[in-house]
Amino acid sequence: DFKRAIMEVTPSFGSTDNQFESYAENGIINYGPVFDKLLQSGNAFVEQVKKSKRTPMMSVLLSGRPGCGKSSLAATLAKSSEFPFTRIISPNDLLGYNESAKASKITKVFEDSYKSPMSCVVVDEIERLIEYVPIGPRFSNLILQTLAVLFKRTPPKGRKLLVIATTSNPDILKDMDLMDCFATILTVPSISTAQEFQTVCFELGFTQKEAAEAATFFTAPITIKQIIMIVEMARQEEGTFINNFKMCLEDFNIRNF
Amino acid sequence: DFKRAIMEVTPSFGSTDNQFESYAENGIINYGPVFDKLLQSGNAFVEQVKKSKRTPMMSVLLSGRPGCGKSSLAATLAKSSEFPFTRIISPNDLLGYNESAKASKITKVFEDSYKSPMSCVVVDEIERLIEYVPIGPRFSNLILQTLAVLFKRTPPKGRKLLVIATTSNPDILKDMDLMDCFATILTVPSISTAQEFQTVCFELGFTQKEAAEAATFFTAPITIKQIIMIVEMARQEEGTFINNFKMCLEDFNIRNF
Amino acid sequence: DFKRAIMEVTPSFGSTDNQFESYAENGIINYGPVFDKLLQSGNAFVEQVKKSKRTPMMSVLLSGRPGCGKSSLAATLAKSSEFPFTRIISPNDLLGYNESAKASKITKVFEDSYKSPMSCVVVDEIERLIEYVPIGPRFSNLILQTLAVLFKRTPPKGRKLLVIATTSNPDILKDMDLMDCFATILTVPSISTAQEFQTVCFELGFTQKEAAEAATFFTAPITIKQIIMIVEMARQEEGTFINNFKMCLEDFNIRNF
Amino acid sequence: DFKRAIMEVTPSFGSTDNQFESYAENGIINYGPVFDKLLQSGNAFVEQVKKSKRTPMMSVLLSGRPGCGKSSLAATLAKSSEFPFTRIISPNDLLGYNESAKASKITKVFEDSYKSPMSCVVVDEIERLIEYVPIGPRFSNLILQTLAVLFKRTPPKGRKLLVIATTSNPDILKDMDLMDCFATILTVPSISTAQEFQTVCFELGFTQKEAAEAATFFTAPITIKQIIMIVEMARQEEGTFINNFKMCLEDFNIRNF
Amino acid sequence: DFKRAIMEVTPSFGSTDNQFESYAENGIINYGPVFDKLLQSGNAFVEQVKKSKRTPMMSVLLSGRPGCGKSSLAATLAKSSEFPFTRIISPNDLLGYNESAKASKITKVFEDSYKSPMSCVVVDEIERLIEYVPIGPRFSNLILQTLAVLFKRTPPKGRKLLVIATTSNPDILKDMDLMDCFATILTVPSISTAQEFQTVCFELGFTQKEAAEAATFFTAPITIKQIIMIVEMARQEEGTFINNFKMCLEDFNIRNF
Amino acid sequence: DFKRAIMEVTPSFGSTDNQFESYAENGIINYGPVFDKLLQSGNAFVEQVKKSKRTPMMSVLLSGRPGCGKSSLAATLAKSSEFPFTRIISPNDLLGYNESAKASKITKVFEDSYKSPMSCVVVDEIERLIEYVPIGPRFSNLILQTLAVLFKRTPPKGRKLLVIATTSNPDILKDMDLMDCFATILTVPSISTAQEFQTVCFELGFTQKEAAEAATFFTAPITIKQIIMIVEMARQEEGTFINNFKMCLEDFNIRNF
Ligand SMILES: Nc1ncnc2c1ncn2[C@@H]1O[C@H](COP(=O)(O)OP(=O)(O)OP(=O)(O)O)[C@@H](O)[C@H]1O
Ligand SMILES: Nc1ncnc2c1ncn2[C@@H]1O[C@H](COP(=O)(O)OP(=O)(O)OP(=O)(O)O)[C@@H](O)[C@H]1O
Ligand SMILES: Nc1ncnc2c1ncn2[C@@H]1O[C@H](COP(=O)(O)OP(=O)(O)OP(=O)(O)O)[C@@H](O)[C@H]1O
Ligand SMILES: Nc1ncnc2c1ncn2[C@@H]1O[C@H](COP(=O)(O)OP(=O)(O)OP(=O)(O)O)[C@@H](O)[C@H]1O
Ligand SMILES: Nc1ncnc2c1ncn2[C@@H]1O[C@H](COP(=O)(O)OP(=O)(O)OP(=O)(O)O)[C@@H](O)[C@H]1O
Ligand SMILES: Nc1ncnc2c1ncn2[C@@H]1O[C@H](COP(=O)(O)OP(=O)(O)OP(=O)(O)O)[C@@H](O)[C@H]1O
Ligand SMILES: [Mg+2]
Ligand SMILES: [Mg+2]
Ligand SMILES: [Mg+2]
Ligand SMILES: [Mg+2]
Ligand SMILES: [Mg+2]
Ligand SMILES: [Mg+2]
Repeated sequence: DFKRAIMEVTPSFGSTDNQFESYAENGIINYGPVFDKLLQSGNAFVEQVKKSKRTPMMSVLLSGRPGCGKSSLAATLAKSSEFPFTRIISPNDLLGYNESAKASKITKVFEDSYKSPMSCVVVDEIERLIEYVPIGPRFSNLILQTLAVLFKRTPPKGRKLLVIATTSNPDILKDMDLMDCFATILTVPSISTAQEFQTVCFELGFTQKEAAEAATFFTAPITIKQIIMIVEMARQEEGTFINNFKMCLEDFNIRNF
Repeated sequence: DFKRAIMEVTPSFGSTDNQFESYAENGIINYGPVFDKLLQSGNAFVEQVKKSKRTPMMSVLLSGRPGCGKSSLAATLAKSSEFPFTRIISPNDLLGYNESAKASKITKVFEDSYKSPMSCVVVDEIERLIEYVPIGPRFSNLILQTLAVLFKRTPPKGRKLLVIATTSNPDILKDMDLMDCFATILTVPSISTAQEFQTVCFELGFTQKEAAEAATFFTAPITIKQIIMIVEMARQEEGTFINNFKMCLEDFNIRNF
Repeated sequence: DFKRAIMEVTPSFGSTDNQFESYAENGIINYGPVFDKLLQSGNAFVEQVKKSKRTPMMSVLLSGRPGCGKSSLAATLAKSSEFPFTRIISPNDLLGYNESAKASKITKVFEDSYKSPMSCVVVDEIERLIEYVPIGPRFSNLILQTLAVLFKRTPPKGRKLLVIATTSNPDILKDMDLMDCFATILTVPSISTAQEFQTVCFELGFTQKEAAEAATFFTAPITIKQIIMIVEMARQEEGTFINNFKMCLEDFNIRNF
Repeated sequence: DFKRAIMEVTPSFGSTDNQFESYAENGIINYGPVFDKLLQSGNAFVEQVKKSKRTPMMSVLLSGRPGCGKSSLAATLAKSSEFPFTRIISPNDLLGYNESAKASKITKVFEDSYKSPMSCVVVDEIERLIEYVPIGPRFSNLILQTLAVLFKRTPPKGRKLLVIATTSNPDILKDMDLMDCFATILTVPSISTAQEFQTVCFELGFTQKEAAEAATFFTAPITIKQIIMIVEMARQEEGTFINNFKMCLEDFNIRNF
Repeated sequence: DFKRAIMEVTPSFGSTDNQFESYAENGIINYGPVFDKLLQSGNAFVEQVKKSKRTPMMSVLLSGRPGCGKSSLAATLAKSSEFPFTRIISPNDLLGYNESAKASKITKVFEDSYKSPMSCVVVDEIERLIEYVPIGPRFSNLILQTLAVLFKRTPPKGRKLLVIATTSNPDILKDMDLMDCFATILTVPSISTAQEFQTVCFELGFTQKEAAEAATFFTAPITIKQIIMIVEMARQEEGTFINNFKMCLEDFNIRNF
Repeated sequence: DFKRAIMEVTPSFGSTDNQFESYAENGIINYGPVFDKLLQSGNAFVEQVKKSKRTPMMSVLLSGRPGCGKSSLAATLAKSSEFPFTRIISPNDLLGYNESAKASKITKVFEDSYKSPMSCVVVDEIERLIEYVPIGPRFSNLILQTLAVLFKRTPPKGRKLLVIATTSNPDILKDMDLMDCFATILTVPSISTAQEFQTVCFELGFTQKEAAEAATFFTAPITIKQIIMIVEMARQEEGTFINNFKMCLEDFNIRNF
């Protein structure tokens, strides 16, 4: 029982200490105007919550392909808001809890946030939080209903709250009537032009020349996360790096299209 | 255990103290004759319950798009009825309770109401109370059956009760045979004319001129809640307010149609 | 345990004391020959159970639209049978019990009835008792199976039992193979002619002239319960009563057809 | 615990004492050659179990419309077998037990039967025992699997067992792969000819002349149970009995075809 | 507790003592070359497990119509293997255990088998073990997954195991991806020729002449189990045995085709 | 409790001691260039995890027909990685645990792996781990969600982890949105050419001549596991080995195509 007492004191879940450390572990690359615009919108929401009296609460959804950088962007916005209370609710931290424990842990984070004058809560990977699987489909209706209420519930008088949620699967959120909970939806794009591709490669350590050559291989939208994986694979192979990279990219494209 | 004893004494759920505070937090705007008519019907039901001997109990449904103002209207009617017992049953207050606890808390409010000579109970967001999700579809049949009985059950001799329920999804209530429980259904409309739009803008602090210009941007029905969100977003951006407002409204319309 | 002992003594559910009070709260209007015939059939079943040796047990189903008067008629028949044991099993009294408690409470009423030489049990709103909802569809199979057995089970030697069940949804009972349990089915009609309509209005307090005028508004079948609601609504409005009544009736017809 | 000890001693379920009393409560009418044949087949199975060494166990299914007399016939066969151990497993006696209690009570009867050199077990209304409802469809798979095993399981060396099961719904038994469990299936027919109809009426107390006249009303197959109900209804009405009977029969035919 | 201790000692389930007694209770009839071949294949598997080093574990499936003799054949093979450890897992012995108790009892038999150098485990009536019913369909996924693992899991170094499973429903095993677990599948046929039919009849005690005449009645494949039932039925009737047999066979064929 | 304490100390599940012993029990045959390439890719992933800073975590999926050698290959790669922490999570070791115990045992292995600087975890037979059955389909969503998180969760700073998962059913993984968790997917092929077939036969102990003749029987892709089974069957039969082998192979091909 002593051990248990300890556990109840230690805020193991949702503690803010170094929660942000495991996000954006490969940094944030500003790959061009599209990303600039995205960051600017995100910051505008932070400002609105700070200042507006009529909208003390706002829920925003970041939506985009797996690996496009939703979690990194959400964490970055939350951190840079410098709100006194910032938390990330992530499936990574909820493994092992049952449906109802998850729901109450999620609720707890929101209720803690109501105690701070200004808060930002990131709700990462909604579909994983609700344990969604397309076959069935199955999901935790308990967690879903909890989120549906929390995304809309106004905090007590004088408290302000920005919610940034992420999803790779906006369609099912729509099917679940969850879209109406959000004031607005931001789409996080993939790397979609040769120019952006070149910038990313350069930032990942390619020489100017390598990056320029790499840009000529670009054929289809790809996420930064995937580019990083391909670069690292290419580094393992023998032979010229840029050739390896080309081959790995081709392999990847064949497998995915 | 002491703490728990306290909790059982404090009527945390459904207490009337400042329950109404969190509704209509942006006030009620009289945007024209349509709203007048709505308010008048609502008040007629209050009168009927007060006076009629043959219908000591009436259940009314407010139905309309998310954000059209159902909860605000219901709360306003309940408050202005000045019945000795007025309560709001809302999903916001039921988070964390399981299906059967929710059902019994709902029942408790009705049974408390039977002790007062004249009562008004608001049942807000039926679809959320029954934990409805369109995929499946899934919902709590226990809570649904409880509501189906409570919406029709006559209070004891000499007691009078007005029930005002709200929903954004009247179709599913029909599919669930819940419509037969209501004596009548009131549709809460969106802002549907440029004139109404202008009135709302003016009431939200636009100058006469700004409101008139804003009215020229009106293209499609929109709820007051959405107008408020757009106004507040526009206030964050740099540049002329009315231009920002136009752009934000256009963005909104593109995203929704 | 003392408290519990008390509870077991107090027959809180299904007690006969003033159970009938809350039925037919607006009285029974004899609106013409159709109703006469219905009442006569009902009384014939009472007689048969009283006298026949070969059919000591009979189950009869009253079926008809919501509000057509099934519960009122069933309660009236039970009361007028003057059998020593008469009970109504109603969803109103079973709120808050779980599936299995409901089933055993229902069984208890039947087993109590077996102790009386002559009994009449009303089983009101079968679809609500079995917690039926069309979406799914879902219902309590436990309660359904319990009813299916009880509706057919012969009481012990020398005991006689009349069961009067009601439903607004005979189709689903058929789909559930429950129809075979009943010896016969009586259809409770709506008010279907201008003449009947006129009689009902007159009995509800219209003057002879008002009732005659009201009859000219009659366009489609309507239940007595609905007529009462419309009359009471009309009484709230300003202006001539009969004009208000006409408008309320029109409103009602528009909403329902 | 004393009370419980008593209960365990008293064989409340499946006791043979007067279990057979509540079956064939209106006697068995020999309505002609079809019935003769049926009885003869039934008796042959009794003989086979008694004498054959190769088939110490036989399961027979009686199938027919509700009210055709399956339960009465099964009980009569069991009784007349004069086997030392005869039991009826009926849904009437299993009300209030849960799925698993039912399954184990059923198993218990079979295991008791294995202790007697010669046994006959009637399993009445399989579809009700397995709590079958066509919507879904739903049923207790636990009880179904239990029956599927018990209908085929050979008793210990030297023991003999005849199982007579009844059903109104052979199609669903087929769909459930339960038909393979039975060595053979007997169809219990309705009253299907004017001659049989006349015999039944006479046996129910009609005069020779009344019975002959009644036979002229015969239009469609009908069960003895239904004839009895119609006769008793006719006795309640005023006027000539045979005319009332004609009208009641017509009413019945209209309602059912 | 003393009683319970005893029970834990007595290996009531899966004990080898006289487990085989209740199988092939009517003996094994060698009805011709088809059966010879079948027996030979079965014995080859026994040999392979005994001798091969590369396949210390083999799972074989016997599949065929209800009553074709699968259980009898499996039991006969197991017995004649003379492996130190032989067990039959049969639904007959698992009645009354819940899903998870069944799964662990099944697992226990396999784990016991791993302690013997050479083992044969018969898994009788897979579809009944997994509590399969076609409506739904429903079955115990827990038991299914347990079997899927056990049918493939290699015993510890130096141990050898032959698994013989039986089913009447190979199609559903295929639908459940269970077929891949078996090294091979043997089909157990029905009696399919007049010659085989004659042999079986003769072995069942017909005179040479009767058997020859019986063979002329043969029209369609039939299992030995069914032939035995028909023979025993014929013995109950009055008149010449061979005529009775003909009639019983005709009855049977009509009912089944 | 003493016994339990012991059990908690003994790391019965996932202990590395001789976990690898039961894999590749028939050795690894290098059957040609296709296999060379496969092994090389596998080793490249090991290297990447060892060296890359940007991808401290990688999940790879091995997919292929039952018996193609996925488990053997995965175990071989894990072993040859010589990472300080290597484990295999296999359904074989999880029999008897319930859904939630399985999920937490799986999680435990991953969390143990995070304590080692460099780890390799094999997750064998995903579809069996999640208790997948195509009818329904049914599976453990709890285990599925656990895997979905674990396959993507980055280990703590400075830790590295290679996950090698196997499946015979990549389609259902795709349907379950599980494919996005893997950085890449390797297809483990069957023996697909006469040349490969010949090599395998030779390695299984055929003489040069027998292997060459065997190659002429090759008609369709077959797994090594199946070849081994056929070889061992052939060894049981009388007559020339190579003829027996031909016949067994033909039997096999008929049964499977
Ligand atoms: N501009 C950027 N925006 C976001 N991420 C970036 C950017 N530049 C580089 N990255 C890197 O790209 C990776 C994005 O991964 P992240 O986990 O955020 O994607 P995700 O969309 O959340 O993926 P998933 O759908 O799998 O959760 C991170 O390693 C991050 O450091
Ligand atoms: N005439 C009006 N009627 C209702 N609400 C109004 C009116 N005028 C202004 N409002 C404001 O509009 C907002 C309406 O929001 P409210 O939550 O009541 O809508 P709702 O229909 O209940 O939405 P939801 O479907 O999301 O529950 C409130 O902020 C309220 O103060
Ligand atoms: N002849 C009549 N028969 C039945 N009810 C009548 C009659 N005349 C007047 N009434 C009144 O009509 C109303 C009928 O309501 P009742 O609740 O019995 O209908 P119901 O069919 O049971 O409705 P529901 O389907 O909603 O349960 C009662 O207020 C009753 O007093
Ligand atoms: N020859 C007969 N066979 C069977 N029942 C007869 C016969 N003659 C008269 N009866 C009477 O007919 C009635 C048959 O009812 P019984 O309950 O046995 O029918 P059932 O087929 O079991 O009906 P259910 O499907 O409702 O269970 C009994 O009252 C019985 O006394
Ligand atoms: N050659 C034979 N093979 C198998 N059974 C035989 C043979 N000859 C006679 N029999 C007898 O036939 C009967 C076969 O019944 P068994 O229960 O083994 O069939 P089954 O296929 O397992 O049936 P079920 O599908 O109902 O389980 C037994 O009574 C057995 O003694
Ligand atoms: N090159 C090889 N790769 C893999 N296995 C090989 C190879 N050569 C020989 N084998 C043998 O082939 C068999 C492959 O069986 P294994 O259990 O690994 O297949 P699997 O694909 O995991 O099958 P399953 O889908 O049934 O789990 C093992 O006995 C292994 O020793
Ligand atoms: Mg993410
Ligand atoms: Mg609302
Ligand atoms: Mg009613
Ligand atoms: Mg019956
Ligand atoms: Mg068998
Ligand atoms: Mg494997």
